[in-house]
Amino acid sequence: MYFTSDNASGVPAPVLDALARANEGFAPSYGADPLMDEVRAHIRRLFEAPEAAVYLVATGTAANALALATHCPPWAAVYCTPIAHIEEDECGAPEFYTGGAKLVHVPGADGKMDAEALATRLAGAASVGVHNVQKGMVSLTNLTEAGTRYSPAEIAALSAVARAHGLPVHLDGARFANALVAEGCTPAEMTWRAGVDVLSLGGTKNGLMGVEAVVIFDPTRAWEFELRRKRGGHLFSKHRFLSAQMAAWLKDDLWRDLARHANAAAERLEAGLAAVPGTGLLYPRGGNMLFATLPRAAHARARAAGAQYYPWPHDQPEDGPDDGEISVRLVASWCTQPQDVDGFLAALQGQHAPV
Amino acid sequence: MYFTSDNASGVPAPVLDALARANEGFAPSYGADPLMDEVRAHIRRLFEAPEAAVYLVATGTAANALALATHCPPWAAVYCTPIAHIEEDECGAPEFYTGGAKLVHVPGADGKMDAEALATRLAGAASVGVHNVQKGMVSLTNLTEAGTRYSPAEIAALSAVARAHGLPVHLDGARFANALVAEGCTPAEMTWRAGVDVLSLGGTKNGLMGVEAVVIFDPTRAWEFELRRKRGGHLFSKHRFLSAQMAAWLKDDLWRDLARHANAAAERLEAGLAAVPGTGLLYPRGGNMLFATLPRAAHARARAAGAQYYPWPHDQPEDGPDDGEISVRLVASWCTQPQDVDGFLAALQGQHAPV
Amino acid sequence: MYFTSDNASGVPAPVLDALARANEGFAPSYGADPLMDEVRAHIRRLFEAPEAAVYLVATGTAANALALATHCPPWAAVYCTPIAHIEEDECGAPEFYTGGAKLVHVPGADGKMDAEALATRLAGAASVGVHNVQKGMVSLTNLTEAGTRYSPAEIAALSAVARAHGLPVHLDGARFANALVAEGCTPAEMTWRAGVDVLSLGGTKNGLMGVEAVVIFDPTRAWEFELRRKRGGHLFSKHRFLSAQMAAWLKDDLWRDLARHANAAAERLEAGLAAVPGTGLLYPRGGNMLFATLPRAAHARARAAGAQYYPWPHDQPEDGPDDGEISVRLVASWCTQPQDVDGFLAALQGQHAPV
Amino acid sequence: MYFTSDNASGVPAPVLDALARANEGFAPSYGADPLMDEVRAHIRRLFEAPEAAVYLVATGTAANALALATHCPPWAAVYCTPIAHIEEDECGAPEFYTGGAKLVHVPGADGKMDAEALATRLAGAASVGVHNVQKGMVSLTNLTEAGTRYSPAEIAALSAVARAHGLPVHLDGARFANALVAEGCTPAEMTWRAGVDVLSLGGTKNGLMGVEAVVIFDPTRAWEFELRRKRGGHLFSKHRFLSAQMAAWLKDDLWRDLARHANAAAERLEAGLAAVPGTGLLYPRGGNMLFATLPRAAHARARAAGAQYYPWPHDQPEDGPDDGEISVRLVASWCTQPQDVDGFLAALQGQHAPV
Repeated sequence: MYFTSDNASGVPAPVLDALARANEGFAPSYGADPLMDEVRAHIRRLFEAPEAAVYLVATGTAANALALATHCPPWAAVYCTPIAHIEEDECGAPEFYTGGAKLVHVPGADGKMDAEALATRLAGAASVGVHNVQKGMVSLTNLTEAGTRYSPAEIAALSAVARAHGLPVHLDGARFANALVAEGCTPAEMTWRAGVDVLSLGGTKNGLMGVEAVVIFDPTRAWEFELRRKRGGHLFSKHRFLSAQMAAWLKDDLWRDLARHANAAAERLEAGLAAVPGTGLLYPRGGNMLFATLPRAAHARARAAGAQYYPWPHDQPEDGPDDGEISVRLVASWCTQPQDVDGFLAALQGQHAPV
Repeated sequence: MYFTSDNASGVPAPVLDALARANEGFAPSYGADPLMDEVRAHIRRLFEAPEAAVYLVATGTAANALALATHCPPWAAVYCTPIAHIEEDECGAPEFYTGGAKLVHVPGADGKMDAEALATRLAGAASVGVHNVQKGMVSLTNLTEAGTRYSPAEIAALSAVARAHGLPVHLDGARFANALVAEGCTPAEMTWRAGVDVLSLGGTKNGLMGVEAVVIFDPTRAWEFELRRKRGGHLFSKHRFLSAQMAAWLKDDLWRDLARHANAAAERLEAGLAAVPGTGLLYPRGGNMLFATLPRAAHARARAAGAQYYPWPHDQPEDGPDDGEISVRLVASWCTQPQDVDGFLAALQGQHAPV
Repeated sequence: MYFTSDNASGVPAPVLDALARANEGFAPSYGADPLMDEVRAHIRRLFEAPEAAVYLVATGTAANALALATHCPPWAAVYCTPIAHIEEDECGAPEFYTGGAKLVHVPGADGKMDAEALATRLAGAASVGVHNVQKGMVSLTNLTEAGTRYSPAEIAALSAVARAHGLPVHLDGARFANALVAEGCTPAEMTWRAGVDVLSLGGTKNGLMGVEAVVIFDPTRAWEFELRRKRGGHLFSKHRFLSAQMAAWLKDDLWRDLARHANAAAERLEAGLAAVPGTGLLYPRGGNMLFATLPRAAHARARAAGAQYYPWPHDQPEDGPDDGEISVRLVASWCTQPQDVDGFLAALQGQHAPV
Repeated sequence: MYFTSDNASGVPAPVLDALARANEGFAPSYGADPLMDEVRAHIRRLFEAPEAAVYLVATGTAANALALATHCPPWAAVYCTPIAHIEEDECGAPEFYTGGAKLVHVPGADGKMDAEALATRLAGAASVGVHNVQKGMVSLTNLTEAGTRYSPAEIAALSAVARAHGLPVHLDGARFANALVAEGCTPAEMTWRAGVDVLSLGGTKNGLMGVEAVVIFDPTRAWEFELRRKRGGHLFSKHRFLSAQMAAWLKDDLWRDLARHANAAAERLEAGLAAVPGTGLLYPRGGNMLFATLPRAAHARARAAGAQYYPWPHDQPEDGPDDGEISVRLVASWCTQPQDVDGFLAALQGQHAPV
């Protein structure tokens, strides 16, 4: 009953196997391994983007910060929602990597940026001359940090606003796979066809040990990205071990199967919660993540049964009045089992888990 | 016959096994995994430093740059040799992470910093007031990038100079294990007892996939390091996979065994080269790395036999006059086999490799 | 009828005279000029702060950015209002000088930070660990960018909140003199006695060519400030010309007289506007600056008569429907003449200016 | 007898007069003052560069650091001599403004960069791929920090090497006027015709209070420069006072007259020193600056007579054995008087100064 985060899970067997296979013999270092050629070709095919530059790094923060720095100068603004991972969870990595760009909030419902709000914000930034930071780029997150989902059309609407101001668009896809399979569209439809210029394609939260791809649809930025990656300490010497994981993840559509599994587990959770009196959802579920209010008593029972998850926001006290509520985040992963979900639901209701 | 770099090798079986074991179930993320507690305790014991702060990152460049940034302000100088990895091979990562510190060269023979030259350099930096960068810290490398080795006494002599000016000392130990076993001293003798304040303890070149420990002997710097690590994108969510590798490496002294193996292979190579007419060594061998001059004809034979290694410096042409020379770098690793060494030696001399 | 900004005005005669006097002969450079000793002593006396470090720079942006960088690490937040000069008018200088700190908005009425809102914001920032930027410092502005004014008690209330979280407080005093004479308190009461740690003491907007003092009440930060100033290119070689201006400004309380003059002109403007039908003030006047709504027709008459001022916000069209309104900023300076004020008021009403 | 630096001098009367004239009335701020239009037009005419972008800042360090940052990315090298002002006297401002570029030394005789040494250095930098900093730009200084002078032909030879590698060339012209009049060439010949892309045109050391022009011959860089200037806190609100000084300096060739005066004073000094037994020059004089060895006894006599100058290098003790030597720097300025020179020479020889 572990719902803290999808990064609390391990990796599926094919990933371990791929590491073992990749371990044989010597291999060129720093990304010149033949496995990386496979990965690059695979991602280009998958995204129908034969010119895209593809790089691997080991953390989502690195992927995001490097992607932003490559597309936004130090004196410009990155427009994002107030709850974006780049704003809330990276200890200022975007500021560090860009050399001091400013993250500017654009509001919207359910953790999604509103296209009109973006248009208003950009229009207002038009006349300041040299005195304020310039318009830099737009960064979206799919799945959002509220667990909701943009459709390709919604992304396209936001990109159109960005494009009208000449701004590139970044997509933080730490949970891209979960969004993609929920939406049932192609990778191209979710990205460059919807106006995305650069994607952080997250593997870690969906079954890898620590591998993220950065896909840059405008290859003229590639060399700068490579230099920034090296300079940031994110170029792996034994790069084959990143390549191998990513190759295994892509092979036979494993990545989408893992995401489908996680989404299904969250769906089961959602359905089950609907039957628990006093609970509610804060946002519509977009993929594998739920934000729910729980009666304090149910929460206490779940805790007693060993369920793991975070109060959300974090600063709610673990203990509260028995007749109160607590809001929590529940994340399912590629390895969440139906019995974990059912056990948690049973605990909430003070039942024994079904066997 | 692969002598390009120790980072062209893979990892030994216990490391793969440890990953598989660590993969079971869920684990707290971001370094809160229980395996990290083991690693921390192990390294503190090993270094006889019960207060030391211990962190893991995935690349040597990250380890070095974060260690420097935590100990040196932006307006100061990092004193290093002209061939230091931080100066030559990190694309300015130290400058990036420190916010623009200046790497200042201190000369010395055989890739080692000379204590008197350091004293002279620091004395000369004493009177510039606000106009030039301030004295910041000293960074040594052991093994050096010339494959040579500092003894603890040599490190202590350099640290004493640094200390007299109030400067902390960093040791880039990408090949610390190779230096340590060659020297036959304890980790403490090679580090804090010799005046080292912060160590980049390299695992990657000696049998890990991509794990380096940073050992900070003054724990008051620890929290700043943690913030810089996160901000640099170097905090792993599935941190257990770094911990597991490092734990396996430390267990039963595997790390020293691997280093002894690599050093022995380089020793065999050194002995064999001595018998090849026309060859010579550029520096005395300190561990697992040799810089040798080869007759062009011998080089051509080795290449024809499939031997892999780099001309050093890189910009020498692969082809040259038959009666000329080429200087090359030859690196042995934890998995270099005697027959690889012998095969290379035989190829140099135009013989068939012994079976 | 020039009300665009107080920085559109020149300097009073004593400042020019002081430059001429300072011009005689040779003088030590880089701040070692004897005039700077006078300035330092004068400011320490004035602020009853015998230990304070005092430095001169030439722009308000430099004063602010250097003050912030000296008191806030790169991985932390500077809490300010959404309209702070550091947020809106410095093209990211604070981010640049701090190395990427994040400016975080704290709301409040009339351009003033609300102490309760600050307390809430800081309480919410307490639990994020390494994942988000840390609590760094608080930056206030007096006069605010809305032309309003903090009393010493209000500053003290905000400082108390900051202090409770261990945060230093910066006061952007680009219009400090205007606030001070309006408040009728001492410099000490407005600053360190109210919990301010570092002050940007603005001279430029109040009669100097380009001189601002930074007063650091905790002198242990002084040397770092000096290094940052030099490194930012803000240490003047012919420093005596900054010192001379500042000395003349302080002499015989000229600085307060100039501010009183500017405030009086704004008061006259305020009184006059009250008699103009259809006008209104957006914020209570704190010193020498007004934000007013004007009937479009009145605005058109003022423009026709040659009055200079900015629409505020900037992006309002200069021309609009005759029966509409426009909001504008009106700034009086040390040299604004009563007849300028009266002429502007007359123009608004379609009268000839009184002679 | 003040020979410490040309920045220890004040300004000539026309500069003070210009400030007084510019002080009348209100003026648009931030560089929109009409005087700046004059300055821009004048400099373009003077340099025969009708498209050049022209900006004013107040310090040489700002001019240099901004010029470099606008032309060199963070991951690249700025090639300069080991004694360049940007390397030795700016406390890392170039590193700060560029975001961590690396200053790489190119040797040469008499403080001048050697074109062959540059070619060798650049050739050696060609093959490092992503691992080391990239080739960024070349920065020359004229007059050099050794007081020597490049001819246009020498600059062109260095620029040709830079150009062959696609690198822009910066000229630090803190003493550009002194070099120019000594050389007797046109501004265009010394700059863009010799391959210079961006010039720091120093006014401060040659008669201004603190004004330097940056002349960017490729105007596509202009907007970035403006943003960097603002972000660095170097955009003056009361910009007219910079413009006025620069306009006065350019008017009627005052700037060249001042430089001729300074050079003539240094020439007189040089001639006089030749007659003082035991003295010698370290470098050939290029303009207004001499580096001389003095007998310790002569030095003591000069000091006793009140002569001001720096030992060079700084860390020589003021007192030394009577029969020893000291090396010193002697700088003449636009206001150095013949009697100062003669008095110093007389003091060295133990004579009374001629009246």
